[in-house]
Amino acid sequence: MSPNLLVCIPGLSQEHILRIRACAEQLGFEVSFFSTVKEAMPHLPTAQVIFGQEADLARFSPQLKWICSPSAGINQFCGKDVFANPNALLSNSSGAYGVTIAEHVVMVILETLRRQKEYDAMAREHIWRRDLPVKSIFGSRTLLLGAGDIGRETALRFRAFSPASIIAVNRSGAASGAYDAVRKVEQLNELLPQCDILVISLPGTPDTYHMINEEKLSLLPDGALIVNVGRGSVIDTPALVRELTNGRLKAVLDVFETEPLPPNDPLWDCPNLIITQHTAGNMTLPYTVQRIVDMFLEDLQRFARGETPLHLVDRTRGY
Amino acid sequence: MSPNLLVCIPGLSQEHILRIRACAEQLGFEVSFFSTVKEAMPHLPTAQVIFGQEADLARFSPQLKWICSPSAGINQFCGKDVFANPNALLSNSSGAYGVTIAEHVVMVILETLRRQKEYDAMAREHIWRRDLPVKSIFGSRTLLLGAGDIGRETALRFRAFSPASIIAVNRSGAASGAYDAVRKVEQLNELLPQCDILVISLPGTPDTYHMINEEKLSLLPDGALIVNVGRGSVIDTPALVRELTNGRLKAVLDVFETEPLPPNDPLWDCPNLIITQHTAGNMTLPYTVQRIVDMFLEDLQRFARGETPLHLVDRTRGY
Repeated sequence: MSPNLLVCIPGLSQEHILRIRACAEQLGFEVSFFSTVKEAMPHLPTAQVIFGQEADLARFSPQLKWICSPSAGINQFCGKDVFANPNALLSNSSGAYGVTIAEHVVMVILETLRRQKEYDAMAREHIWRRDLPVKSIFGSRTLLLGAGDIGRETALRFRAFSPASIIAVNRSGAASGAYDAVRKVEQLNELLPQCDILVISLPGTPDTYHMINEEKLSLLPDGALIVNVGRGSVIDTPALVRELTNGRLKAVLDVFETEPLPPNDPLWDCPNLIITQHTAGNMTLPYTVQRIVDMFLEDLQRFARGETPLHLVDRTRGY
Repeated sequence: MSPNLLVCIPGLSQEHILRIRACAEQLGFEVSFFSTVKEAMPHLPTAQVIFGQEADLARFSPQLKWICSPSAGINQFCGKDVFANPNALLSNSSGAYGVTIAEHVVMVILETLRRQKEYDAMAREHIWRRDLPVKSIFGSRTLLLGAGDIGRETALRFRAFSPASIIAVNRSGAASGAYDAVRKVEQLNELLPQCDILVISLPGTPDTYHMINEEKLSLLPDGALIVNVGRGSVIDTPALVRELTNGRLKAVLDVFETEPLPPNDPLWDCPNLIITQHTAGNMTLPYTVQRIVDMFLEDLQRFARGETPLHLVDRTRGY
């Protein structure tokens, strides 16, 4: 009997569906497509390979050998007992989001430095005013906390703006990219006082939980800007809100400890903060979906040959 | 008697004033500073060198030998009879604005491609939504109409975003910069149909007046984006408004035929348009002022040695 491949990704275009079907059938898979977990549910008991991001897909698939998530973050799969088959492999789509997230990061940084939210508010009132002091990426000291796909693509773009420096920070202190230097997380306390723009792209793991807390925030110089496009749990949000409310720091948050951010959350109206609705790295840019499908099909071919997926993640480490 | 240098630039910092004073006095100038033309008026009859941008400074200074404008555009000086002394030299500060304007251009392009105005409106209403289809500079075909300081700095930054192409267009068809190719203005009709993002940085001259008219706009593909950071007169605004209102094109305008844009101008509420209040290249970025002063002092030294300013412009040509 052919192994069952189950694809559960809402909004895939007809073109992508045809491409996945053609490749899967050529490799001898029986493939079926669903838009919701609910629809997929009756088919989970026989699924051996799944392309989808909900934890329930792993939870109710006892025959699962491999699940590939179209996301980069995989927190939902890291809880105990998430996998009906604890030996199933998990891969992600890290590498597909760098382009769109880096464009988002540059956009929101420039929006903040150039006071665009204030200027937009004036434009809505038909007010012509052009005298607000602005800043630039040019000449700024930038720090990238996280030196994976997002850090690398962001650094590439920063470089063209001639910042004073681009320092990457990760666990090992080693990474390749357009960085001036790579440092270890342990050195953060020495690095933060020299940082005008801090971009966080860390995954949400026990190690990164509230890494940016009150003490770390206090080390940043007055007027520094923090952009978080990693996971909301990396920042102690109440501590950040205090620094935004007193006007010492500015921030852009794309990720939150609770998503969607509830309509009554006071964060929406916090001063010196731009909120984006986890739009930095979603699947609304066609190129991103293209990359996700490319990477999955590459790994599907490897899987069919009995090899492990290239984009395998470590469920205990969390990325 | 020492030659008189008159500086009439509002908002110069004390540091810049001291720097200009020290350099000018060392060169043997008698220097005085004013914030408005009205204040400066009684001193214009004896001014020989002026650092300022109002046409009246040239109009009421019969002994003027050289005026340096802190702006890049010099339209106000190009009318007939503007100069009391028609032999006076005019220089500008083109070269000081490329960095800030290029950052503005990248920001507003990303804001448009990533639907940020719509997302911001939702965020103001505390609405969490993240499914609007977006586009990227990555893979886009870009056309830079104007290949001076602004075009060059913009191309440098575009390059880091991996667009499909960066084509510059100017009168000569020759320019240095991070362009894939440089074409002549006469070739615009062949180039526009292959353009996703058009950035205009042309000066306002009789030659560029309404260069982007109904015919040219109609050659752009559906969904193309136009950014104008040159002069408002380059675009036939009513023709553009028709293409924005019918939803075929998108635009960002930083410059207008009438500035300030009057509060009752319907352009403020035109769909598919972002209006910025001529903030792309003003003097609110400290680096810009630094460059303007550097360039002026360099030319002041040349002038004191009897040489012509490096940043001389041609009043009949208009740039």
